[in-house]
Amino acid sequence: MPQLRIAMAQVNATVGDLDGNARVVLERTREAHEAGAHVVVFPEMVLTGYPVEDLALRESFAAGSTRALDALAARLTEAGCGDVAAVVGYLDRDGVGPRNAVAVLHGGAVVATQFKHHLPNYGVFDERRYFWPGQSLDVLRVHGLEVGMVVCEDIWQEGGPVSALGAAGVDLVVVPNSSPYEQDKDDLRLPLVRRRAEEAGAPLVYVNMVGGQDDLVFDGDSMVVAADGTLLARAPRFVEHLTVLDLDLPGGAATTAGEVDGFQLTRRVLHQEPLPAYEPAPPPPVAEPLDELAEVWAALVLGLRDYTAKNGFRTVVLGLSGGIDSAVCAALAVDAVGAENVHGVSMPSVYSSDHSRSDAHALAERTGLHYQVQPIADMVAVFTGQLGLTGLAEENVQARCRGVTLMGLSNQHGHLVLATGNKTELAVGYSTIYGDAVGGFAPLKDVPKTLVWELARWRNRQDDEPIPANSIDKPPSAELRPGQVDTDSLPDYAVLDRVLDDYVEGDRGYDDLLAAGFAPELVDRVLRMVDRAEYKRRQYPPGTKITFRAFGRDRRLPITNAWREGT
Amino acid sequence: MPQLRIAMAQVNATVGDLDGNARVVLERTREAHEAGAHVVVFPEMVLTGYPVEDLALRESFAAGSTRALDALAARLTEAGCGDVAAVVGYLDRDGVGPRNAVAVLHGGAVVATQFKHHLPNYGVFDERRYFWPGQSLDVLRVHGLEVGMVVCEDIWQEGGPVSALGAAGVDLVVVPNSSPYEQDKDDLRLPLVRRRAEEAGAPLVYVNMVGGQDDLVFDGDSMVVAADGTLLARAPRFVEHLTVLDLDLPGGAATTAGEVDGFQLTRRVLHQEPLPAYEPAPPPPVAEPLDELAEVWAALVLGLRDYTAKNGFRTVVLGLSGGIDSAVCAALAVDAVGAENVHGVSMPSVYSSDHSRSDAHALAERTGLHYQVQPIADMVAVFTGQLGLTGLAEENVQARCRGVTLMGLSNQHGHLVLATGNKTELAVGYSTIYGDAVGGFAPLKDVPKTLVWELARWRNRQDDEPIPANSIDKPPSAELRPGQVDTDSLPDYAVLDRVLDDYVEGDRGYDDLLAAGFAPELVDRVLRMVDRAEYKRRQYPPGTKITFRAFGRDRRLPITNAWREGT
Repeated sequence: MPQLRIAMAQVNATVGDLDGNARVVLERTREAHEAGAHVVVFPEMVLTGYPVEDLALRESFAAGSTRALDALAARLTEAGCGDVAAVVGYLDRDGVGPRNAVAVLHGGAVVATQFKHHLPNYGVFDERRYFWPGQSLDVLRVHGLEVGMVVCEDIWQEGGPVSALGAAGVDLVVVPNSSPYEQDKDDLRLPLVRRRAEEAGAPLVYVNMVGGQDDLVFDGDSMVVAADGTLLARAPRFVEHLTVLDLDLPGGAATTAGEVDGFQLTRRVLHQEPLPAYEPAPPPPVAEPLDELAEVWAALVLGLRDYTAKNGFRTVVLGLSGGIDSAVCAALAVDAVGAENVHGVSMPSVYSSDHSRSDAHALAERTGLHYQVQPIADMVAVFTGQLGLTGLAEENVQARCRGVTLMGLSNQHGHLVLATGNKTELAVGYSTIYGDAVGGFAPLKDVPKTLVWELARWRNRQDDEPIPANSIDKPPSAELRPGQVDTDSLPDYAVLDRVLDDYVEGDRGYDDLLAAGFAPELVDRVLRMVDRAEYKRRQYPPGTKITFRAFGRDRRLPITNAWREGT
Repeated sequence: MPQLRIAMAQVNATVGDLDGNARVVLERTREAHEAGAHVVVFPEMVLTGYPVEDLALRESFAAGSTRALDALAARLTEAGCGDVAAVVGYLDRDGVGPRNAVAVLHGGAVVATQFKHHLPNYGVFDERRYFWPGQSLDVLRVHGLEVGMVVCEDIWQEGGPVSALGAAGVDLVVVPNSSPYEQDKDDLRLPLVRRRAEEAGAPLVYVNMVGGQDDLVFDGDSMVVAADGTLLARAPRFVEHLTVLDLDLPGGAATTAGEVDGFQLTRRVLHQEPLPAYEPAPPPPVAEPLDELAEVWAALVLGLRDYTAKNGFRTVVLGLSGGIDSAVCAALAVDAVGAENVHGVSMPSVYSSDHSRSDAHALAERTGLHYQVQPIADMVAVFTGQLGLTGLAEENVQARCRGVTLMGLSNQHGHLVLATGNKTELAVGYSTIYGDAVGGFAPLKDVPKTLVWELARWRNRQDDEPIPANSIDKPPSAELRPGQVDTDSLPDYAVLDRVLDDYVEGDRGYDDLLAAGFAPELVDRVLRMVDRAEYKRRQYPPGTKITFRAFGRDRRLPITNAWREGT
């Protein structure tokens, strides 16, 4: 039976960095070539990065992408890799419009092209804004095997182009993806890939992007599944990885060309005949699934690391209150960029407890991050005295003086400011805009408070216990007035997070929440808080919309102006 | 020939305010009924407001919308208006998904329903994310006339549903719209409506929303155009208005039902026979076009007034620097909410000139707004001294102390903070995040600096000359260090605005800009500034994306991470 050595290049591309991404493709193709691979598959739009958003609409960017693709084909050949068929995602633009495209590069040229058929337009995706769908299928004969290609969302469709490829009789399907991480998404992927491999009647090679890009994280999880559903290879997640696998396949018959299930299918022949038989390499290991908290921690670390680096920063600064959120943020930052690049600032006010300082100090000692104390009492006194501020206005000034302090240190020393708020606080508005919300990246913005605690305990069970036990165990408090604790203003976090999850993530309405057994007073209270918070975010800052992303779920909170669930 | 009295209800709906919007429909239908109208047409999605964005995806909101529609039908009849056919836009949801829908209410019930066919998905529109397109056409026979309906974007298509209605032989086409204001859009609308009326072979009744909603402004401009292109009525823009018009039409033949041009057309009969002949009312006046600057000023005032009111504020506060931007913002605010609701704060630093205070004071005197002086020297000194800030970090602290001051006054007294920056500054990053960028609404965010000056001079040519001549004539300066003027850091504004308009709004690439005759050094310099500004906005604040809107054009600036035009 015809043999083929496939390499899955699970790599980290950067949006807009055409030169850098082309270098990544070149280096990994060279590595695949050295490992004897005949085909190397890269993620969706690896050459432009993903998501390019409105850049897709700029003709000059599409022209840059196709120029870079042609140059890459030439450079691969110059580098001695011209015999490898490299499957490379890029942005194309034809007479119809922009295309989410995949090219096969071989011998210094583009030998096959495939446009994505199904354009997702939900959650974080807006592809029907940016791209035109493909109508045709290019099947390429490589060393006697018929290889079909589809892109990412195409495999989430029953009876779509994969089914057509199966009907046409391909021997192998390769699928470049840029599929963002969501909690437990890996549990969906394997059964999905299995169904599509069965539908195609051929092995399916699923290659996904890895890395953080703006507010998305791509987790990799590339895999090969045989036509009978057997998992043949699976790459480790959250890291760049080249997986090389030998396939020995039945087939070799020509695919049906012309109209197949409504698609126009074109056959292209790179090598008519199979390779002479060769000794296959030992099969690569199949990566074990990560446990739930390890997976979330890895996603948060990768997102923070790449956000920092891709925005041109080497160092970060954050406020350390002695509380759980800033402690977990600091531990994430140390894991992401190294303790020597993390600057923690304790900013006590007149209402700060002794333990706020001692816990912050203990965290610094345990992790080895840079630590300084900047009391804010003098700053706050000038504002409240001169402007006559009291109550909530006075509380907010404390948070804002901390924000100005962190931004001052950022401007003076070039650090990226991290905001330490969690998703629960953001949802109910338990934070100060231009105060503790200040920062370029908020590592916990998608993490509910109860999960913050779980993550802290999980991280402390690993090697080095970075987080002081007292930060985990003490009752949470904003310390903006004497004796204040969060439960003065909020329901118990365990209950609150369950309501928020059902309401915000689950899209459940008021009546559904009552039917789920939540007390009417609780539902009223929480929904009122979400209303007010959403109002406040719309009021400030100007020109921006705040969206909620649960690792890739972009959603506006449900309340808009006057509509209220349940009223 | 059959007669019909049509009312165009150009009204201001609020997103999410189902009860309030239903009241607006009820009141205006009553008014139309009192004027003897047989049909009253409201804007697209008047019942939910527009745009509802992700609210469209919540089943409980769609259920609320259809409940409100049914209740409205009943209330119209109770109010004695059951004989008027009211054409009301709303959110529907059927087995397929959410629908951008129009219902005809009559006799306490829904007697016809039409779904929007063409879903715009560019600029500010993302309708393919939210709605499913209609495939059918409902034609309603009203007093012996066959009335077809389409929605907004449907009339921007050649050979679409309007053409099918023409082929089927309708006597009248009504078109509810929520079409946001863009500069000079009215110059496109009239020829467009004319083409469609000709295509339909019938008069077209175009009814548009009016009012500010979040960062959009709807300008109204409702009109009726005869089949031969004659403009029969046109409502004044930027105000709510009920226009009543008598039509005397040929026709009365039954429309072709069944399949027409690929649409499934259903006839529904409300009244088979024409009305007895009656004396028509005198034709309504046709509103004169506004001149260019009057139109922009009206859009800015309406956007600011409605943003303030719809977010629950009565009063606004803004910094008055004595410069042109804050002076124009203050004049807009006075026109929008009245001088008695505008609070101006002069916040001089050690670098502030004498004229910064005297010009701010003169503005307050001329307009009658509330005025106070809050020097920031003491605040700034604590931060710079304690943190050792110099250079740009020190400049930014000044802007941020002003931001904290305005937010403190906002929290203490309940004012909405206005940010005074203009579009040119935002594009090139000539502003301080969490500093002068602080505010809930930035009235000039879509106005380039050169247009700010034109607007100031235009406004002063009207009744009361609110803006001191010196604010218009002096060289612009941020006054963050001694002797600083904008031209230290920026090209001449006249040139800069031309480059930005071509680059950002015109989507021109680097080579196009050189071909347009701009010097390479200038293009390099401006594009580098836009790059840096876009980086900075991505870094701060977290979880948000800044978009640029030229009165409804939502766009990300072109530079993303590593890609640079021209490099």
